[in-house]
Amino acid sequence: MTTRKKSMLVLGMMSGTSADGIDVALARISGRVPKLSVTLEGHHHAAFPVPVREAILRLANGGSTTAAEISQLNVLLGEEFARAAISACRSWRVPLRRVSLIGSHGQTIYHQGTPSNFLGHPRLSSTLQIGEPSVIAERTGVNTIADFRPADMAAGGQGAPLVPFVDYLLYRHPTRSRAALNIGGIANVTVIPAHAKPKDVFAFDTGPGNMIVDALVEAFTRGRSHYDKESGMAMRGRLLPNLLNELMEDPYLQKQPPKTAGREQFGRAYALKILTWAKKHRAKPEDVVRTATIFTSLSIANAFQRFILPRTKIDELIVSGGGVRNPLMMVYLAAILGFPVIFSGELGIKPEAKEALAFAVLAYESYHGRTNNLPSATGAKHSAILGKLVHGRER
Amino acid sequence: MTTRKKSMLVLGMMSGTSADGIDVALARISGRVPKLSVTLEGHHHAAFPVPVREAILRLANGGSTTAAEISQLNVLLGEEFARAAISACRSWRVPLRRVSLIGSHGQTIYHQGTPSNFLGHPRLSSTLQIGEPSVIAERTGVNTIADFRPADMAAGGQGAPLVPFVDYLLYRHPTRSRAALNIGGIANVTVIPAHAKPKDVFAFDTGPGNMIVDALVEAFTRGRSHYDKESGMAMRGRLLPNLLNELMEDPYLQKQPPKTAGREQFGRAYALKILTWAKKHRAKPEDVVRTATIFTSLSIANAFQRFILPRTKIDELIVSGGGVRNPLMMVYLAAILGFPVIFSGELGIKPEAKEALAFAVLAYESYHGRTNNLPSATGAKHSAILGKLVHGRER
Repeated sequence: MTTRKKSMLVLGMMSGTSADGIDVALARISGRVPKLSVTLEGHHHAAFPVPVREAILRLANGGSTTAAEISQLNVLLGEEFARAAISACRSWRVPLRRVSLIGSHGQTIYHQGTPSNFLGHPRLSSTLQIGEPSVIAERTGVNTIADFRPADMAAGGQGAPLVPFVDYLLYRHPTRSRAALNIGGIANVTVIPAHAKPKDVFAFDTGPGNMIVDALVEAFTRGRSHYDKESGMAMRGRLLPNLLNELMEDPYLQKQPPKTAGREQFGRAYALKILTWAKKHRAKPEDVVRTATIFTSLSIANAFQRFILPRTKIDELIVSGGGVRNPLMMVYLAAILGFPVIFSGELGIKPEAKEALAFAVLAYESYHGRTNNLPSATGAKHSAILGKLVHGRER
Repeated sequence: MTTRKKSMLVLGMMSGTSADGIDVALARISGRVPKLSVTLEGHHHAAFPVPVREAILRLANGGSTTAAEISQLNVLLGEEFARAAISACRSWRVPLRRVSLIGSHGQTIYHQGTPSNFLGHPRLSSTLQIGEPSVIAERTGVNTIADFRPADMAAGGQGAPLVPFVDYLLYRHPTRSRAALNIGGIANVTVIPAHAKPKDVFAFDTGPGNMIVDALVEAFTRGRSHYDKESGMAMRGRLLPNLLNELMEDPYLQKQPPKTAGREQFGRAYALKILTWAKKHRAKPEDVVRTATIFTSLSIANAFQRFILPRTKIDELIVSGGGVRNPLMMVYLAAILGFPVIFSGELGIKPEAKEALAFAVLAYESYHGRTNNLPSATGAKHSAILGKLVHGRER
């Protein structure tokens, strides 16, 4: 996909709801839609120090805090993102001065997509990403665009999902209908019918991704493991049909899209509910983890059957995110769905790099003053230019 | 000050530490230094609803909160700033589409200019302004630049004071040495020697502005008054020399500039200390308020005598901010200092509009990609382009 047009090296950075660290993707981008060219040139992961991760999760789980703590954590995460960018470039032997732009998602510590009453305002929704972009721009010297979600929300959207816009740019196809599924903490899907226009694309969070399984494994191993490596624990267990039935009754799964999910739905409180059930029924950890794994696959398959396949056929499912490393989850998903499952890596996009890459593309569009949300996915009343530009230090 | 160059209408918005509401200034700006032309075309004040002000002050005073509350309050204040901009333009009969740019300071809920240890990072300082600019840009349709302080801090500065840069642009004079004093919640001064270059300018917070007197009046009147109108209460009282002596021993006053003050030094805890003293000594409210008023004047005069006059003569003092409406404070100040005191209004800048106007000018410089901090005032290691640009909705 080379082009004679001038290309830009753009860094995308993302830390997901699991808050395990920062994914950094290096993209070479040129042209514009419909001639946009995006190639992934590098991927790097930088883990958060343990106390930082703990502070993020405590705040994201609704813990009591102060303006001081959020202010300090915002800047500290800015330093972490800057460090991740710098060490990523070092590992790829790409000098920072060759990078033209950084797109940083930041770290979500709160997201409320549906409005509620707040201090007399009847319909207020909001989102809060931290990881100060001024720190990133200063340390790297690179123009940085960050904080994409609030502008979509201001335009009446849910501020999520944002990646479908990029899925649309990357995966639309003249004759094949595709679905792009990302299994991070939460699982989300973008449906791109053959020859789709932006308004034909739709997307939503299907429900949990790795979030529940991760939380259970962390609890059962008393923090020694943060995820079920190669489905090892689930493989040793047996399905608990009663638990599965209870989980499948979750109202989120029945809700019509567009809909977004987060730690509010499937976070610590949810995992605690399962752990309480397990204790009451004296269930084995392996059985609980297997059941949660299968529930996750089923909740995704369920979303296809209820909300996607009645509207369009699907020729290919392109999967990205940490979930691709969970073989049991993948096997169940493919078996239930019955159409070809492709890992995004096969299309040149390493699954773990996908979301970070998306923020490089979103920043590229914002930098050129082009709208970069997908109202059909977020529910926004109109398209908007998302992101806030901070100037890099003059070099 | 007309110019043939193309001029821009820029809105500046500011809510200070007292959190009583939003000042909106409309500036017509053209050219660039040294031919920059700035004229104030309008000023408007929009009060915050009482519950909003209470929530701000609770957070700013270190009260316990959650990420959810800060997230929601950030968006709610964005709506308040947007509403203030819209009603200001309506009151001036200036259509929003004629406004080219908005500069919004936001509302500070935390500011720590000097570094401390945080989660293993040995030297972290930070600042947190809320009032989501994406909401302002969406509701007004105008490109909005906000959140100026973090970039100065990332460059090693204290993130404050920012207004001295604008004082320098507005007030520098070939033969007169000037000091610009703003008495808001906190009092700050910018010293601009005759024929000064940027590095010759220095600035710092002298200490309390109206913050202490306001808090005392609010306590003594059980919230019926928020400030001492026309010094009425102080005028009826007598000076308490013992209290004044105690207050004058405050270590902040002795500290060498550059230095910044805020609610951390002179907020609720400070007022409570005075109220405790008053109770213990059975002091009359009028006497306490008079003493606090005189203390404020003395703390400013003291700063001139210790830190300014040894370095440069001063030909004129230009005063702005709510403090100019406190006659007793002004009389004492002029009497002690002994050089001409000019209200900024006499130079075409309504005192209450001064800080808001400054953020219009800071945004104008940022928009044109020009640095807009004054390292000699903030302590930053280098000059930087402050502010984050959010695109207005396409119109």
